[in-house]
Amino acid sequence: MRAVQLSKYDQQPALVEVPEPEITGPLDVIVRVGGAGVCRTDLHIIEGQWEQKSGVVLPYTIGHENAGWVHAVGNAVSNVAVGDPVILHPLVTCGLCAACRDGDDVHCANSRFPGIDSDGGYAELLKTNARSVVKLDPSLEPAAVAALADAGLTAIHAVRKAAAHLRPSQKVVVIGAGGLGHIGIQVLRALSAAEIVVVDRSWEALALAEQVGAHHIVRADGDQVDAVKDLTGGNGAETVLDFVGEGGAVEDGVAMLRRAGSYYVIGYGGRVDVPTIDIISTEINFVGNLVGSYSDLSELMVLAARGLVTLHTARYPLEEFAAALNDLDQGKVRGRAILVP
Amino acid sequence: MRAVQLSKYDQQPALVEVPEPEITGPLDVIVRVGGAGVCRTDLHIIEGQWEQKSGVVLPYTIGHENAGWVHAVGNAVSNVAVGDPVILHPLVTCGLCAACRDGDDVHCANSRFPGIDSDGGYAELLKTNARSVVKLDPSLEPAAVAALADAGLTAIHAVRKAAAHLRPSQKVVVIGAGGLGHIGIQVLRALSAAEIVVVDRSWEALALAEQVGAHHIVRADGDQVDAVKDLTGGNGAETVLDFVGEGGAVEDGVAMLRRAGSYYVIGYGGRVDVPTIDIISTEINFVGNLVGSYSDLSELMVLAARGLVTLHTARYPLEEFAAALNDLDQGKVRGRAILVP
Amino acid sequence: MRAVQLSKYDQQPALVEVPEPEITGPLDVIVRVGGAGVCRTDLHIIEGQWEQKSGVVLPYTIGHENAGWVHAVGNAVSNVAVGDPVILHPLVTCGLCAACRDGDDVHCANSRFPGIDSDGGYAELLKTNARSVVKLDPSLEPAAVAALADAGLTAIHAVRKAAAHLRPSQKVVVIGAGGLGHIGIQVLRALSAAEIVVVDRSWEALALAEQVGAHHIVRADGDQVDAVKDLTGGNGAETVLDFVGEGGAVEDGVAMLRRAGSYYVIGYGGRVDVPTIDIISTEINFVGNLVGSYSDLSELMVLAARGLVTLHTARYPLEEFAAALNDLDQGKVRGRAILVP
Amino acid sequence: MRAVQLSKYDQQPALVEVPEPEITGPLDVIVRVGGAGVCRTDLHIIEGQWEQKSGVVLPYTIGHENAGWVHAVGNAVSNVAVGDPVILHPLVTCGLCAACRDGDDVHCANSRFPGIDSDGGYAELLKTNARSVVKLDPSLEPAAVAALADAGLTAIHAVRKAAAHLRPSQKVVVIGAGGLGHIGIQVLRALSAAEIVVVDRSWEALALAEQVGAHHIVRADGDQVDAVKDLTGGNGAETVLDFVGEGGAVEDGVAMLRRAGSYYVIGYGGRVDVPTIDIISTEINFVGNLVGSYSDLSELMVLAARGLVTLHTARYPLEEFAAALNDLDQGKVRGRAILVP
Repeated sequence: MRAVQLSKYDQQPALVEVPEPEITGPLDVIVRVGGAGVCRTDLHIIEGQWEQKSGVVLPYTIGHENAGWVHAVGNAVSNVAVGDPVILHPLVTCGLCAACRDGDDVHCANSRFPGIDSDGGYAELLKTNARSVVKLDPSLEPAAVAALADAGLTAIHAVRKAAAHLRPSQKVVVIGAGGLGHIGIQVLRALSAAEIVVVDRSWEALALAEQVGAHHIVRADGDQVDAVKDLTGGNGAETVLDFVGEGGAVEDGVAMLRRAGSYYVIGYGGRVDVPTIDIISTEINFVGNLVGSYSDLSELMVLAARGLVTLHTARYPLEEFAAALNDLDQGKVRGRAILVP
Repeated sequence: MRAVQLSKYDQQPALVEVPEPEITGPLDVIVRVGGAGVCRTDLHIIEGQWEQKSGVVLPYTIGHENAGWVHAVGNAVSNVAVGDPVILHPLVTCGLCAACRDGDDVHCANSRFPGIDSDGGYAELLKTNARSVVKLDPSLEPAAVAALADAGLTAIHAVRKAAAHLRPSQKVVVIGAGGLGHIGIQVLRALSAAEIVVVDRSWEALALAEQVGAHHIVRADGDQVDAVKDLTGGNGAETVLDFVGEGGAVEDGVAMLRRAGSYYVIGYGGRVDVPTIDIISTEINFVGNLVGSYSDLSELMVLAARGLVTLHTARYPLEEFAAALNDLDQGKVRGRAILVP
Repeated sequence: MRAVQLSKYDQQPALVEVPEPEITGPLDVIVRVGGAGVCRTDLHIIEGQWEQKSGVVLPYTIGHENAGWVHAVGNAVSNVAVGDPVILHPLVTCGLCAACRDGDDVHCANSRFPGIDSDGGYAELLKTNARSVVKLDPSLEPAAVAALADAGLTAIHAVRKAAAHLRPSQKVVVIGAGGLGHIGIQVLRALSAAEIVVVDRSWEALALAEQVGAHHIVRADGDQVDAVKDLTGGNGAETVLDFVGEGGAVEDGVAMLRRAGSYYVIGYGGRVDVPTIDIISTEINFVGNLVGSYSDLSELMVLAARGLVTLHTARYPLEEFAAALNDLDQGKVRGRAILVP
Repeated sequence: MRAVQLSKYDQQPALVEVPEPEITGPLDVIVRVGGAGVCRTDLHIIEGQWEQKSGVVLPYTIGHENAGWVHAVGNAVSNVAVGDPVILHPLVTCGLCAACRDGDDVHCANSRFPGIDSDGGYAELLKTNARSVVKLDPSLEPAAVAALADAGLTAIHAVRKAAAHLRPSQKVVVIGAGGLGHIGIQVLRALSAAEIVVVDRSWEALALAEQVGAHHIVRADGDQVDAVKDLTGGNGAETVLDFVGEGGAVEDGVAMLRRAGSYYVIGYGGRVDVPTIDIISTEINFVGNLVGSYSDLSELMVLAARGLVTLHTARYPLEEFAAALNDLDQGKVRGRAILVP
């Protein structure tokens, strides 16, 4: 089959012919890829930033946001059948460790991460397991939802934690209305009645934010903290979801918090650096967020099937992967680039 | 191997020679039984009360409270190894349905129940799967904890729900200090600082209750509701855990509730029969409780290993199963009867 | 001032001249009534059904769903000022008992209930206290929201409890789309993404239900349990909110529950009568619901101000109170009857 | 009456004669002081560190950890009577703002803080209000519990948040077994069954920690992070309660966390300074903690009355306040210094 493999860091991957994956374990599932999201992390992998972290042996196939149709299953697989449309949870988990037994898949003690530390979805077929496949509603096309597998999953995970505390009278600030942020706004609208204030540097992103449900938009032009204070009666917001996490976003986000408020770290790059006296005197919280659980992904697919979460995609045939990566790198992709084998 | 099999309802089971179970699936685990609890449900099964509900085909081996040592494992089992001491969660679950994915094993859509609907633990070997085995601390002997697999698991499950709401200033009433109740009292002491009021008809049971941690005991002699009211400043208790569920216990328990209180149904036999006006005007709740999850069993084993939950057992060799069943039926067992193969 | 007073049970109340209430305590608030909801409970009071329960001394002024403008305040009142538009929490609470200190006003150990056990809002002025007044957004007219003070408050209280558990993939059944139910549907839409199934005997009520947000409607024509089972893949719903509570609604509601589901008792009249074996074997819960807290009322007013909860009202001048009561009794009121002094 | 007043910063306060406080408002309560805790904050106040923050006008009476007997009450006070023994919540709150209505007194929008921004408890009488007095069990002497009013209240507040998540199988690290920490350990033992690991630089503090309930002690000698990792199977602890908050404690505490763990900031002085990539890749949380609510103080008094929380005190007559402050400054106080008027 055809696959886009990385053979050397800092060098463009290549479309090559590789052997098809095979069922070897009872819970194995092989998926015919319908769409693979092209993510900034893929650029970082090619640049070698993940070399140490993933420890993957080159060459290997990248692509960690995948959806498609079940192509083959191991003999213990009971939740999907050949032909079913599915989206793939990014992690392949063991199901037996304490974290898995609590439904907290993401902290599985024995997981692997296709596209990061083993072969991913820039290919015709991808091997995962029964615990990673969420069956799609017939109304959902794999290529249309593939990018929800990682970006969307991270957004819903953070929003579900926050929504558990949000009241109609409260304000939630979303910093960054990009790939993750604009999904986060849609999920917030679905799961809570709090008023959503979106902060971004780009008027285009703010326009999209309004279109998908923001109640208030604030341009990050230097006065954004004051603007949020004005919108919150001078008190700040109960909740800040920071999808940026660098370049001043953290400092801004903390300054936008109300007493007893919570700041959700989702984007990354910068530092949380706050005197403990400020944390205790206002009694604020910082909440880390990684990608979501299988249950988070299932719920996200329900929202997608009901039209409550939608995603702009720009599709590229698999063989045009280089154009997709290049367009992403140069900021030319509207929405999310998807490779379609 | 030897096994105690039921061949006909309403007739004593017999110790017979049967083939050993074999590993056929990748997650199968075969356990050498170290102890099998003898439970009132076993008597009901023999009498035929479960015939319709379980749909089991006779003959089969009874025994649903089991612990022992791992004897053989399928090739996908990674959480236990041959020789490990283990206790068995009563259900064998699929791990792939929505309930299992949330850690809510008990509501698995595809479970089986060894000892009820398939071969159980009154035998030398028992077949379960990797999802049902909790590894024991070396300090715990399988025969000493076997009865915690069902009775104890039910008690901790209900207590964990209640303890999440209990404050030091509150009172929790435990109705029934028998097999489940006296474990419940110990778990309440471990997980909460609420004051525990135990109600029972038997002075002997009340003496045991005090020994394992009850703060107050109340004899169910007809004045038990008034006695609980007196102990709670006339207001009633925030929480009632009813391990009896019949013979007036439900009516008593509801009458002992404070406004906004919660009544936990654990024992059964009677009915909850309350006018809706009484439920809304006092805003009380009724909480159903089935056996606990894998996580509940893991936590119970931690409490047992730390000596915070102990169980009285009366041991019988497997071949004396009839004596054990008979003693239980005639109320002659002190603590819990355990068959040791 | 003018007030509608009940002088004798089973006899029509009369519009009479009474002395104006006066500020006597530091936290007293006197409100100029802008609207007083006419509720079925008022009919029951007149019939004498509440005589024993309330212990009120006749004659007194009825009316327990009130909104208006602040007319006078005691010297310790800091949260409202004369002229402010306000809605009144139905209870006047102490603020010092344990329940009040936890924000659980409804279980205040020292409350009074204007319109039930002391003078209510069928009058020009009404005396309450600072703890009972929620300031209204300028966009909200007191007469338009008065009926939310009790009916709406009960609905949001139950829905907030349920919404804390509801997921997008789940179904919530609303039994009864009348006065409380149709507010409940709107609050469910605002606070959760679960699919809402509304069951009612009346096509008109079902049409209103769809208009205010129901995803599915089911006519209670005898096959309603089967219809709900069909809508839930044969499993039943995770949550049932019963705004009826009599005439078979309870039995239906329990039969519509999924394993581990919760049934919210809101309407009343009938009984919850269920064998404990059914409660434990399916692990279902029954949740009592009384009127909501001050915080519930505040949040409801936020939803109202944002247009997320609206109410149909039929207004009557205060002097036409008899017509309003009569129309209600004969089922001629579309929406909620409101007396406007 | 006699009171210890501060007249000038950086100068010893003096015992002077001042007018007795008087009842002026309906909810006022005047307390005859039975004991006033001498706290490090008092030293900081004298040094002028709080000048800007409190904005208090000199001279005024210091002392913010107070207990005693009710001396006089306003006419709307219903929860205590003259002669009742009481402990004082450190804040005097309004009871009408949104935070107060939710039971979240500490974030009251209109509070004052006797001993910090108005006259405190180094005196014979102290003026507070009905919302701040918790009636004591007859078994508790005011001087014995006074120091629980602030130090103890902070400890129980943080522990209650943590205990809501702690399981018997988990480990909780307590950094610092001093004044707050040793109360925290006792509350942890009462409210959870998690294993408690205490880290401190002082063997004496560690000995006290063991005496009051620590399961494991770790000397902070440079290898404390490794020691905690060893005690937690190399994974780190689910919860860290940091009562120190400076001098390397924060860095240590974060390094001791398990994936998905939570770090509670209680002590202060240093900074939380962590890359956002570390927060998201391990999905850890930081939880701020201020002093507790009225309900927290009530529960703490229940624990104290049942002997589950005890405090070492060194008593000084009011006129020896200078010796008490001096002894505290020089580290000569065993337990907590208490002034007894």
